[in-house]
Amino acid sequence: MKHFYNPPQQQWDSILERPAQAQKEIELTVSEIFSEIKSKGDIAVKRYTQLFDGVECETFRVSEERITQSERHISPQLKEAIALAKTNITKFHAAQKTERIFVETCPGVSCWQEKRAIEKVGLYIPGGSAPLFSTILMLAVPAVLAGCKQIVLCTPPNKQGEVHPAILYTAGLCGISEIFTVGGIQAIGAMTFGTDTIPNVYKIFGPGNQYVTAAKQMATSFGIAIDMPAGPSELLVFADQTANPSFVAADLLSQAEHGADSQVVLVTTSQAVMEQVEEAVTLQLAALPRKAIALKALENSKLILVDSNENALQLINRYSPEHFIVIAEDETFFIQNIMNAGSVFIGNYTPESAGDYASGTNHTLPTNGYARQYSGVNLDSFYKSMTFQKISKEGIKVLGSAIEEMAAAEGLQAHKNAVTIRLKSLEDER
Amino acid sequence: MKHFYNPPQQQWDSILERPAQAQKEIELTVSEIFSEIKSKGDIAVKRYTQLFDGVECETFRVSEERITQSERHISPQLKEAIALAKTNITKFHAAQKTERIFVETCPGVSCWQEKRAIEKVGLYIPGGSAPLFSTILMLAVPAVLAGCKQIVLCTPPNKQGEVHPAILYTAGLCGISEIFTVGGIQAIGAMTFGTDTIPNVYKIFGPGNQYVTAAKQMATSFGIAIDMPAGPSELLVFADQTANPSFVAADLLSQAEHGADSQVVLVTTSQAVMEQVEEAVTLQLAALPRKAIALKALENSKLILVDSNENALQLINRYSPEHFIVIAEDETFFIQNIMNAGSVFIGNYTPESAGDYASGTNHTLPTNGYARQYSGVNLDSFYKSMTFQKISKEGIKVLGSAIEEMAAAEGLQAHKNAVTIRLKSLEDER
Repeated sequence: MKHFYNPPQQQWDSILERPAQAQKEIELTVSEIFSEIKSKGDIAVKRYTQLFDGVECETFRVSEERITQSERHISPQLKEAIALAKTNITKFHAAQKTERIFVETCPGVSCWQEKRAIEKVGLYIPGGSAPLFSTILMLAVPAVLAGCKQIVLCTPPNKQGEVHPAILYTAGLCGISEIFTVGGIQAIGAMTFGTDTIPNVYKIFGPGNQYVTAAKQMATSFGIAIDMPAGPSELLVFADQTANPSFVAADLLSQAEHGADSQVVLVTTSQAVMEQVEEAVTLQLAALPRKAIALKALENSKLILVDSNENALQLINRYSPEHFIVIAEDETFFIQNIMNAGSVFIGNYTPESAGDYASGTNHTLPTNGYARQYSGVNLDSFYKSMTFQKISKEGIKVLGSAIEEMAAAEGLQAHKNAVTIRLKSLEDER
Repeated sequence: MKHFYNPPQQQWDSILERPAQAQKEIELTVSEIFSEIKSKGDIAVKRYTQLFDGVECETFRVSEERITQSERHISPQLKEAIALAKTNITKFHAAQKTERIFVETCPGVSCWQEKRAIEKVGLYIPGGSAPLFSTILMLAVPAVLAGCKQIVLCTPPNKQGEVHPAILYTAGLCGISEIFTVGGIQAIGAMTFGTDTIPNVYKIFGPGNQYVTAAKQMATSFGIAIDMPAGPSELLVFADQTANPSFVAADLLSQAEHGADSQVVLVTTSQAVMEQVEEAVTLQLAALPRKAIALKALENSKLILVDSNENALQLINRYSPEHFIVIAEDETFFIQNIMNAGSVFIGNYTPESAGDYASGTNHTLPTNGYARQYSGVNLDSFYKSMTFQKISKEGIKVLGSAIEEMAAAEGLQAHKNAVTIRLKSLEDER
């Protein structure tokens, strides 16, 4: 872990710099695979599934029977845990529903905004080292709540061409029936263009490795929306003397085990806390099964001592962490003034893993500094907001001349005329 | 205008196809200019301003004096019109403010969502054939309402290196003081990387030609968000026998005058209306100053007769128009069932120009079929939503075992441990 003691502001940017992602070479690969999927559909998807996943799939679609049977492989304890998580996620996302917003801006001029669900969405669930069924809850629950008509789920097959039962079980529990054993670039390509078996969608959600990330970015150039651009996961902890160093160490390690490129930062106003946390990290690390990964991530992690809460806040807003844990006597100061963070975890008893799994908030969050301008996934991510207006005869009389005046000043005579012709007909009516 | 009479569904996609935008060659130009701006800053911006706008700018920043003086050049009538439009836009966007959403998902588990303004935003206002000061209202009013701290406005200079007074006046009225006479690719590049004079921003808004559009797309690959991808402006009108054909014709022409690539579509259940609208178009066209442009757009426009409201609706949802005017006896059917449209204008007295200028709704809307998955600009476009959570000792006891169970099932031991260590310390407390 790298130590910084009261670094001056002009050094912050270089201290907080994230490693650059090499995307250029990948782009070429993605581009080739996309154009093959576009022209050859399922045949291309099969070819790349064989190439990348080493498995020949008869069909990509998981049968309803398989989905139903998955239940048998899930322990009662895990079922109960998933049920609780689903309940909390549903509560928190259902509360985000907004009503129609109606304003009569002038007499006779009625304007309103309504949200309507995106009809077709695609959820990408990575396979890889762990079956991330928690991500299904985070994406499927709000998609169903919003009322998306078609929800497609793609996830890579294992060497036997199968999907982990926890993924099938969770998807089934959420009411997802269109599940396809396709992963990586070919999954994103299939949902972008559609094939005979895999439907195209309007927006693609979900995490993934750098290939999936590059493929999602490429999908946007074909008119498909994505949840957000992605980067390696991050955690920044602010801890003052009121923090429990063992808890902080456990949180830092929970971030570090994600991957060797995970970003882990501790900011503190207490040199004692800094030292105690580092000791606790060493101690706890030894017992972890994913020790090698965590150790690699920790090499790039940073411990930063600052001299005041104000400086800490400024530095944290500059970094704009995906996850921000704050354990501070004056937590209110941080809560009120944090401008850029994906999700904020407050106090000694709020580990990041709570939000990752079961508290109810969404774990699909902006990384890589994107918290400056992007929201994490929320209910609105599955809607688009549309505006409506209805103007009465009286309304156009009130508003008409202003529109004519502005249209003329912009040199758009036909825009003006669309009003003039109506005003004139109303005069003739008299 | 092209006529289609009850075309079968399988032909809809080809009938409704929008002309492809050639972006590939432009991308290369954008890429070169971006990398020069990134390395050379203001010097590169000056060079390209001279090259593309034919003017040598001493400084890009418009002085406060200039902004204040612009008022003198605006007629009292136009001032009044702009004031009314601003009032309505403010009313409609202020109504979109949402409160903090707070849910105690389990006893002791407090979760909430708050929106915080994007700190630095950039507004691009095209110059070109018309001074689009109305777009300033549409972007600056919600940016100010949201509380964005820094609002930067770029707009191209004319041959004298100046900006139209209506643009300066409107910007000043909205409280924008950072105005730069820079346009096109170089403006987007400057706001992406920042130069000595022009600040970088986190999100870029605003319309523009294909160069600006390509530059905004490129900006996203440098971590900058944009309001939405863009394409030529579009209007689809549904009119049944209750529609006034002259009004419909005026609306179609108001769209056609935007540019030769504007998309204009009429869908109707009445052959009489179809014929009458076409006659009225010919009649009204003759009097328009932008006749040549409108005529060009009309060549590609479509008149489509369908046999039922149901078929009309399906076709319209398939097309997903930016602007959708509906003049129908059963307007409720369309209002309730339209899924994909940027903004909807209802009835004979609601011309699209009302929404373009003064009714209060936003005119920055998704084109090119993007209404399927993107919202038009609204108050939320200037916020990101963040989540917060605070868990008490009691809360983590309730939630803890579920988190442990799920983390273990995903193979993330350190995630589990962050909870276990807390639960254990609570046991020890007793």
